[in-house]
Amino acid sequence: MSFDAATLPYGVYSLPGDAPRVGVAVGDDVLDVARALGDETFATGSLNPFLAAGPDRWRLVRRRLTELVGAGEAGPYLRPLAEVTPHLPFTVADYVDFYASEHHASNLGRILRPNEPPLVPNWKHLPIGYHGRSGTVVPSGTPVVRPCGQRKPPDAAAPGFGPAERLDVEVELGFVVGTPSRLGEPVPTSAFADHVFGVVLVNDWSARDLQAWEQRPLGPFLAKSFATSISPWVVPLDALTAARVHGPVQDPEPLPYLRRSGDWGLDIAFELRLNGEVVSRPPYTAMYWTPDQMLAHLTVNGASLRTGDLYASGTVSGPEPRTWGSFVELTRAGAEPLVLADGSTRAFVQDGDEVVITATARGAGGGRIALGEVAGRVEPARR
Amino acid sequence: MSFDAATLPYGVYSLPGDAPRVGVAVGDDVLDVARALGDETFATGSLNPFLAAGPDRWRLVRRRLTELVGAGEAGPYLRPLAEVTPHLPFTVADYVDFYASEHHASNLGRILRPNEPPLVPNWKHLPIGYHGRSGTVVPSGTPVVRPCGQRKPPDAAAPGFGPAERLDVEVELGFVVGTPSRLGEPVPTSAFADHVFGVVLVNDWSARDLQAWEQRPLGPFLAKSFATSISPWVVPLDALTAARVHGPVQDPEPLPYLRRSGDWGLDIAFELRLNGEVVSRPPYTAMYWTPDQMLAHLTVNGASLRTGDLYASGTVSGPEPRTWGSFVELTRAGAEPLVLADGSTRAFVQDGDEVVITATARGAGGGRIALGEVAGRVEPARR
Repeated sequence: MSFDAATLPYGVYSLPGDAPRVGVAVGDDVLDVARALGDETFATGSLNPFLAAGPDRWRLVRRRLTELVGAGEAGPYLRPLAEVTPHLPFTVADYVDFYASEHHASNLGRILRPNEPPLVPNWKHLPIGYHGRSGTVVPSGTPVVRPCGQRKPPDAAAPGFGPAERLDVEVELGFVVGTPSRLGEPVPTSAFADHVFGVVLVNDWSARDLQAWEQRPLGPFLAKSFATSISPWVVPLDALTAARVHGPVQDPEPLPYLRRSGDWGLDIAFELRLNGEVVSRPPYTAMYWTPDQMLAHLTVNGASLRTGDLYASGTVSGPEPRTWGSFVELTRAGAEPLVLADGSTRAFVQDGDEVVITATARGAGGGRIALGEVAGRVEPARR
Repeated sequence: MSFDAATLPYGVYSLPGDAPRVGVAVGDDVLDVARALGDETFATGSLNPFLAAGPDRWRLVRRRLTELVGAGEAGPYLRPLAEVTPHLPFTVADYVDFYASEHHASNLGRILRPNEPPLVPNWKHLPIGYHGRSGTVVPSGTPVVRPCGQRKPPDAAAPGFGPAERLDVEVELGFVVGTPSRLGEPVPTSAFADHVFGVVLVNDWSARDLQAWEQRPLGPFLAKSFATSISPWVVPLDALTAARVHGPVQDPEPLPYLRRSGDWGLDIAFELRLNGEVVSRPPYTAMYWTPDQMLAHLTVNGASLRTGDLYASGTVSGPEPRTWGSFVELTRAGAEPLVLADGSTRAFVQDGDEVVITATARGAGGGRIALGEVAGRVEPARR
């Protein structure tokens, strides 16, 4: 893993025997921020205090780090990324998962409700979302134990219990809230960058057979709550300026509180790898709802934000089959397994499989900058 | 508000000008635990450190407080409850809401899906639940601002935006997790009292018109996330020994991981008051799923528990109309408004209304012990 010197993503890392502290990734190294800036607020195992400080402080610290790196003075504070252990970069407050890809929602609709229109009636009027389990958000590299639970095949008389047989992944982008808001006060789309600090890559592990049985009427629960993996390096919005693009044309026009005031579509390109082989390339530019709209919707009822809130985009899927961001789509619910380079096939993820999601964004020079990775290996269910 | 001297519920309170600290309610007073026990771990604004200490410590502290009160030595550490400000008693980690009343689920099914069986097919096989917003759990007394959002009447061509017109309440019991668990390791029903410290009363405010439009397919979101009120005094399970009863007969027999090993049905009787008038008396004994089953289900996929996790029962409703725990049931979705003592009517909750939920449990002498109250007044929407 390597980062462009202008990206400067934040994380929490430790050296063997040392307590975790805040770092910034520079190229193939990590910079000890507390020592480099002489600021003990970074000598802590969580980004939360910095996230809470708000956009003026975020900009100031980024400028100082940019100057330090640009002047070639970072050397004394660098350690190779390969030598450090990354940790969960912030304490997750509330975790919300959206459903913002029209292609993904349509694909799922065709699979799950073949006799109805692919999109539910509300889909183009609001960014659908739901709360997930913040306590099981884990950093990249954490093994994922195959969950057990109830599932009932359509032809079975009663549900059975056992390891999930349709373990899946979801390629998503996550937005990290820094500045909190007050209960009862909605956050407009125009205030997006005042509250959101940056982005992480997300793998929203999903057990499709558990989900099919439990979901009606109150939504996904155990099918998702066993693990949600995130990349350990939070890329600031300020590093994504060149990646900002118009969002899509939205028809019908959204209600006024959802109208966009800035270009928060993002030119980010994902790759989904299974055991090293690229199986899909989901494009974030194909998303329907933009992150400023998601934030305005999340708070329009007066719900407050806390530092460390994380909201994810939902599965990123493009229009073409090999741009879909989940196995349930890529294999049409297992009916058309993927054939891998070694000749083996996959309907869903198997024990021992390693799933890695990477992404790049359009950079300032027109090239692409890396946004890191989120990886996880599947371990067998515990009985 | 007054508590039996044997109940000894824990909370966080402050005196004017002082920092919040842990207290225990005794009769009409609050006991300063840090000073009474000479233990500075209670001189803090959150129960979390004590909750995390686990059941041996919970029992030890309760025994010492019981002895202190029994010996008549509490006097120097008491202040009248009426003089203190109660606060949110613990930092809520994840908040989960179940749906454990068969009467409530059936009533809702009849209202929402009149042409289908009242219960969805999975209902008797698992305790249905979903994650809510932990950041908007507020203590009793916090005003509740009527939320705005999208709603679409069935005959409208497109959704409109504005204040919720069907603001409702849900009478619930909440379970407070103390001892955490490890990721990947399910918590069996038999370990319920090793992990759950005690109970609070919950009002799960709900905007039914927002909910009807947003809920499909991923469940309730903004209809619930604007506020969830809890009582400020956490009643330990050890104070509820006399209230423990067999749960209901469950048919079909649940899968092995849901089999009950203890009697965690609870003889708790609620009262729901609107502006001082009792409008319903929901009985907790009528619940179908027991809290040890909810905990086992919540973790059977390996999801870990954190100190401060809160899970609520879902609306408590009994078999008779005036035992239903929400207005949507009490008024059959507004079709049969309640007639109040002053001659006014209510289909749903109006601006200015004060909603108070109280409860009592069967006590050791056969009488009833008070479990406190959760109150909230509705403020008009902000435009």
